[in-house]
Amino acid sequence: MTQDDRYVIGLDYGSDSARALVVNAYTGETLATSVKYYPRWQKGMFCDPAKNQYRQHPLDYLEVLEATVKEALAQCSVDVAKKVVGIAFDTTGSTPCFVDENGTPLSMLPEFAENPNAMFVLWKDHTAVKEAAEINALAKKWDIDYTAFEGGIYSSEWYWAKALHVLREDEAVRAKAFSIVEHCEWLPAILTGVNKSSDITRSRCACGHKAMWHESWGGLPSEEFLTALDPLLAGFRDRLFRYTETADKPVGHLTAEWAERLGLTTKVVVAGGAFDCHMGAVGANITPHTFVRVIGTSTCDIMVSSYEEIAGKQIQGICGQVDGSVIAGMVGLEAGQSGFGDIYAWFKRLLEFPLKSIIGQSELIDEATKQQLIAEATDRLIPVLTAEAEKIPAGESAIIATDWMNGRRTPNANQLLKGSIAGLTLGSDAPRIFRALVEATAFGSKAIVDCFLSQGVKIDQVIGIGGIALKSPFVMQTLSDVLNMPIKVCKTDQACALGAAMFAATAAGIYNKVEDAQQAMNSGFAFEYQPNPERAALYEELYQRYQALGRFTEYGLN
Amino acid sequence: MTQDDRYVIGLDYGSDSARALVVNAYTGETLATSVKYYPRWQKGMFCDPAKNQYRQHPLDYLEVLEATVKEALAQCSVDVAKKVVGIAFDTTGSTPCFVDENGTPLSMLPEFAENPNAMFVLWKDHTAVKEAAEINALAKKWDIDYTAFEGGIYSSEWYWAKALHVLREDEAVRAKAFSIVEHCEWLPAILTGVNKSSDITRSRCACGHKAMWHESWGGLPSEEFLTALDPLLAGFRDRLFRYTETADKPVGHLTAEWAERLGLTTKVVVAGGAFDCHMGAVGANITPHTFVRVIGTSTCDIMVSSYEEIAGKQIQGICGQVDGSVIAGMVGLEAGQSGFGDIYAWFKRLLEFPLKSIIGQSELIDEATKQQLIAEATDRLIPVLTAEAEKIPAGESAIIATDWMNGRRTPNANQLLKGSIAGLTLGSDAPRIFRALVEATAFGSKAIVDCFLSQGVKIDQVIGIGGIALKSPFVMQTLSDVLNMPIKVCKTDQACALGAAMFAATAAGIYNKVEDAQQAMNSGFAFEYQPNPERAALYEELYQRYQALGRFTEYGLN
Repeated sequence: MTQDDRYVIGLDYGSDSARALVVNAYTGETLATSVKYYPRWQKGMFCDPAKNQYRQHPLDYLEVLEATVKEALAQCSVDVAKKVVGIAFDTTGSTPCFVDENGTPLSMLPEFAENPNAMFVLWKDHTAVKEAAEINALAKKWDIDYTAFEGGIYSSEWYWAKALHVLREDEAVRAKAFSIVEHCEWLPAILTGVNKSSDITRSRCACGHKAMWHESWGGLPSEEFLTALDPLLAGFRDRLFRYTETADKPVGHLTAEWAERLGLTTKVVVAGGAFDCHMGAVGANITPHTFVRVIGTSTCDIMVSSYEEIAGKQIQGICGQVDGSVIAGMVGLEAGQSGFGDIYAWFKRLLEFPLKSIIGQSELIDEATKQQLIAEATDRLIPVLTAEAEKIPAGESAIIATDWMNGRRTPNANQLLKGSIAGLTLGSDAPRIFRALVEATAFGSKAIVDCFLSQGVKIDQVIGIGGIALKSPFVMQTLSDVLNMPIKVCKTDQACALGAAMFAATAAGIYNKVEDAQQAMNSGFAFEYQPNPERAALYEELYQRYQALGRFTEYGLN
Repeated sequence: MTQDDRYVIGLDYGSDSARALVVNAYTGETLATSVKYYPRWQKGMFCDPAKNQYRQHPLDYLEVLEATVKEALAQCSVDVAKKVVGIAFDTTGSTPCFVDENGTPLSMLPEFAENPNAMFVLWKDHTAVKEAAEINALAKKWDIDYTAFEGGIYSSEWYWAKALHVLREDEAVRAKAFSIVEHCEWLPAILTGVNKSSDITRSRCACGHKAMWHESWGGLPSEEFLTALDPLLAGFRDRLFRYTETADKPVGHLTAEWAERLGLTTKVVVAGGAFDCHMGAVGANITPHTFVRVIGTSTCDIMVSSYEEIAGKQIQGICGQVDGSVIAGMVGLEAGQSGFGDIYAWFKRLLEFPLKSIIGQSELIDEATKQQLIAEATDRLIPVLTAEAEKIPAGESAIIATDWMNGRRTPNANQLLKGSIAGLTLGSDAPRIFRALVEATAFGSKAIVDCFLSQGVKIDQVIGIGGIALKSPFVMQTLSDVLNMPIKVCKTDQACALGAAMFAATAAGIYNKVEDAQQAMNSGFAFEYQPNPERAALYEELYQRYQALGRFTEYGLN
């Protein structure tokens, strides 16, 4: 460490936990990491899985903020805290919450402290299915289709659907609700001492992708549209916001209170917030024509495109296109697969049936040995399947599957779709079916890439981040073969937090723009996969079968 | 036992073993049963599974004949043997063998004793795929389609394909081959002392269903057809036969030698032979409009129809229609599903993956316990799946499957078809998929029943025999619901051998016709399933989805 070193803190708020990275703002080197789980959430409080209701208390967010930042700083030499110049947040989304006139989430007020409707409505909360359907119906007959830049289909996981659902359901919240804040907007606001809801800096990423905000129609949907949807929404538009900001801009400085709570100085610049995958794409060193995929249970896929390339286009069938949602000065495009690792996990659960239902009941061995044995089998199942599947030549079995066991997000969202497996014989064993499922997830990826390509958005390489990207060479090689494109996998396993650190460094003025921060701070790549030309040609054929099976599943089965 | 009691012996030759039943010819009561496995076959001799070559030595048949009959008689009081008046055989088929001029299977001659091509070619031997294709191609362009009464598609499992394949392959056999005999024809011939191949009584069942024999074209296909197929077949037609007989007719009496070897008298009448399922249908008390199903790994389905009903019709898409193949004076119709219990067994093997591949390799427990644990899990898998699947309401999951994992025999044979499972979600667990597979096998059954119904062949009840019929009430109730028909399950678990006993009693003159023997000797029913009207209505809808998935699999996937 030299006299001139500067540090930034990247904070990544996931579904279950938050992690803080202390990063050298010049080199991108990670000095310390700390992860903490949300305490109330971990106890299952305020949630009702049977109703798909998932709510998070704002105190969970604040408590882990303090805990992770302090724990991370404690791992560094004492000088580091003083040289932290910036902090930035990425969070899940759309994860909105009603706030009062002061910008305070209602659940921070004593009378709402235990009310789930006064809390943040987590992205995966599906209580607003009805409201989303109403928004879609109204948008399609309105003169402006406000869903146009959000892929054309509004989701129950998003801002207005959730807000309307809560307003309808909860009279007390309705009476007190003044405005709405996204999780990624609230953390910068509270750290910088915002005490008027109108002063909250609004996230281009969150609002552009989820709140139907677009410059072309003057910001949010019109008051007429919102009140036609439900008179309960009357007045919100004016109390919300007209403008949004990209996350590279500073929101303000740490308040004295928060500087003390976090062990930092009031010189620390707080950057704007954005969603995790978007900052993750930056952390993964996204550039134009590079398709960044966060590959885990599902995928979140991010592209950036120049104004020239995207000019006048509304890219159909994706999850949204928002100017500046990833990098200021470029159009961010979002897509994703509803199921990826989740599909392998489903097959694993299927094969676990005899372990749980029979061996688990056996009286041949004692309980402890039984649990050890089941745990061993459970742990080894995917690695053994992978090793066996890898030995099977591509195209050796005629099995073909679709990857829609959890519906389809992109292209052309349809959550009602289901998965299929065809080409089964009495010789179709577990490794062969597993291989077909891996191929199916790769074909689903190709369908997304093709959706971009066919609309003139060029993609020439893929960068993978997330659990599966780092852990499964077999899956990644198959993906490379199917896409017929090279895939690089980032060294960092914390691309989102690293991306947040890049935004923090930019907002703090170390860099003029996020691209410069990427250049200096990126982690480099751990692996690089090259497509095998023979398998790529073969998969091109099998992809036609995938598409045929998909068309049948979508149009022919009912 | 009274002074006047008479007994018959029914002999059922399966793929691996033969069983003898000693039956009271008046009451049908079974006095004794004996089962013996073919000794050479059990050692894997003369077979090559990699080439799908399955051959059986005639000495295997003779040795188990003597052993089973003696063992069964030994269980009876000494008087019984003297009062045995008839004996009859059913066997697998088409299981043909080349014989010399004396009617002796070539492998009974010293120089051919070890030559698989001189042995019986078991039904499931698939070495003659090429020859079957040639027969089909020629039949379609010939002025008479000789496959017309065999479902229109000649199989590699059948008579002429196998004979031609062996002739082409084996010069020594070619030089010595004089005629051909089916397994079910040879046993009656040898027991009655036939010593000229032209004196062998030819089975209506075997020849009508598998040798393209039909009265309308004067028996076997013309010499022109056969030599056009291959000049190697020249001359066989004349040396084979013009006429065939139903199995209720006596073929002769036991020779002194065989009477002694079996411990019987020379007064014993030997009936004509037929295939196992056909005699099994008689043993199951088949009547017109009753659909008898032998339900095991696959199904063999038998109908009888009156001349009036069937007059002038060639029922399309089934496995054959032969006057007298089941009961003299009626037309026997054959159909079948390529996979039934085999599909459940496939799913079981799939779920066994972690048992065999992981627990089997674990070092947490000793080898003996491991094997016990795996054996327990393997044994309990289908019962536990069944119990769980039974609890799931029909139509609760959207999973739909086809039953073509082993191709499709009826309707419209297509061995290239493969199985599919659609409607999968991340919640599709093993019991739900198992239930869908059970429903798929029932839908496949409905497709066969509909094939008959749509061509004016009336079916109003189903009789089930075989392992699954007796052992799985869940499968049988689902079948009844899907077919929307009552299903009765025979008390006897030896319907084929009991049917043979009925033929023996008829041939011996105890009855004028087989129907009378059925009336007196049937075992009655152990279970009767009635369709549930609500489930039947629901399954009628799901069947449309099964058909849609089937059409896609057949026409849309390539």
